Amino acid sequence: MRRIFLEIAYDGTNYSGWQIQNNAVSIQGTIDKALSEWLGEDIHTIGASRTDAGVHALGNVAVFDTESRIPGDKFAYGLNSRLPEDICIQQSFEVPMEFHPRYTETIKTYEYKILNRRFPDPTRRKDSFFYYGKLDVDAMNMAASEFVGPHDFKSFCSANQEKKSTVRTIYSAMVDKEDDMITFTITGNGFLYNMVRIIAGTLIEVGKGAIKPEDIKEILEKKDRSAAGPTAPAHGLTLVEIEYPEWE
Amino acid sequence: MRRIFLEIAYDGTNYSGWQIQNNAVSIQGTIDKALSEWLGEDIHTIGASRTDAGVHALGNVAVFDTESRIPGDKFAYGLNSRLPEDICIQQSFEVPMEFHPRYTETIKTYEYKILNRRFPDPTRRKDSFFYYGKLDVDAMNMAASEFVGPHDFKSFCSANQEKKSTVRTIYSAMVDKEDDMITFTITGNGFLYNMVRIIAGTLIEVGKGAIKPEDIKEILEKKDRSAAGPTAPAHGLTLVEIEYPEWE
Repeated sequence: MRRIFLEIAYDGTNYSGWQIQNNAVSIQGTIDKALSEWLGEDIHTIGASRTDAGVHALGNVAVFDTESRIPGDKFAYGLNSRLPEDICIQQSFEVPMEFHPRYTETIKTYEYKILNRRFPDPTRRKDSFFYYGKLDVDAMNMAASEFVGPHDFKSFCSANQEKKSTVRTIYSAMVDKEDDMITFTITGNGFLYNMVRIIAGTLIEVGKGAIKPEDIKEILEKKDRSAAGPTAPAHGLTLVEIEYPEWE
Repeated sequence: MRRIFLEIAYDGTNYSGWQIQNNAVSIQGTIDKALSEWLGEDIHTIGASRTDAGVHALGNVAVFDTESRIPGDKFAYGLNSRLPEDICIQQSFEVPMEFHPRYTETIKTYEYKILNRRFPDPTRRKDSFFYYGKLDVDAMNMAASEFVGPHDFKSFCSANQEKKSTVRTIYSAMVDKEDDMITFTITGNGFLYNMVRIIAGTLIEVGKGAIKPEDIKEILEKKDRSAAGPTAPAHGLTLVEIEYPEWE
């Protein structure tokens, strides 16, 4: 048996999310089916990040075990020819059997894009959240920096968070504007359920002036979901990269 | 009777192009239908640029005549609430009845995007042409500059070009790369049928090394479509802007 690592990009628009489900088309289900039909084995991938419906990825990660003797790097090519055009493997290689994409230390980077202009741009409607009102990008960036470091993110996760500890470490968080696109980029050692979308929703409130950058500290301290802003829509979010520092 | 100017953005993916057609869903047909139903008049827009199937626009232009007394700037809002999300009016205002979007001097800007990386990025598959091979961006940019000025573009237009003169003036043409996206931007006083896509296809050949930047002059002089490169795919092309210098 061999374990194969996949780096996966997808446009999440037409999927119910990463995780396999009955009666819904998922990224994982689509990949498992393509692999199983191709290899003639019953393949079950294990994903690093169970992205929600509508969320995109440039570099999600999954592994699967196979009896196949195909060279590790060839799975990307073979699988891409069997996948729809909204899912594309970026690279594949063999990893040791003990590598697990979730129970291994990771550094994850997400991007949340806000298209800030008078009217929507149809060519960018699927991977950015459109907001027409004025947003103070400097204030948003100042607020973003308050998330850097180890913090208890209980105020910034949805009620159905399953994990015990709500402490995570953020390595960098910034907000940048180029033309009419505001991009919030955040890197950390892990993210709770809906955490990036709730932080993005809170930063939008900061941009509007409804929350002040210096209020973030207090919102974190309250450890209460209702203290933070709303959950920003899924389609603005992209999982950019997952790094495995122990394995590189 | 009043004449209303519309600046229109669209994702051309799901349309047969700008021009109204039987048995096909066009941008123009979709806008005409929305306007006619809303205003209770039989509305026929006149477009500035009849973009092909799959081509996008950030700023195509159309006008229509109406008896309606709605303020000019309000048509954008009212129409957007009646249009699908892949078409979005960017602004509307009243113009003199003698303004015609095609029989008026214009400056048009197009962008052709080439995603140049090992594997496709599904989130950018609809508005860029994916090419995995190595491309020499400096050579492409050098070749692009050869198009600047007044030239006979007979070598760079499709056979079914209807217009008599094939002379056009290009004000600027450049190729730029940011991360893995190569963008070719061209501005001119007019473009022949498929001209930007044939120039883009020729620049890709330059990028590959199959055509040299200094060959462009000779290709122009031949006045023969077969001397130029292939027509690049429609989905990489976006009509960015149409300016009306006489009216500004």
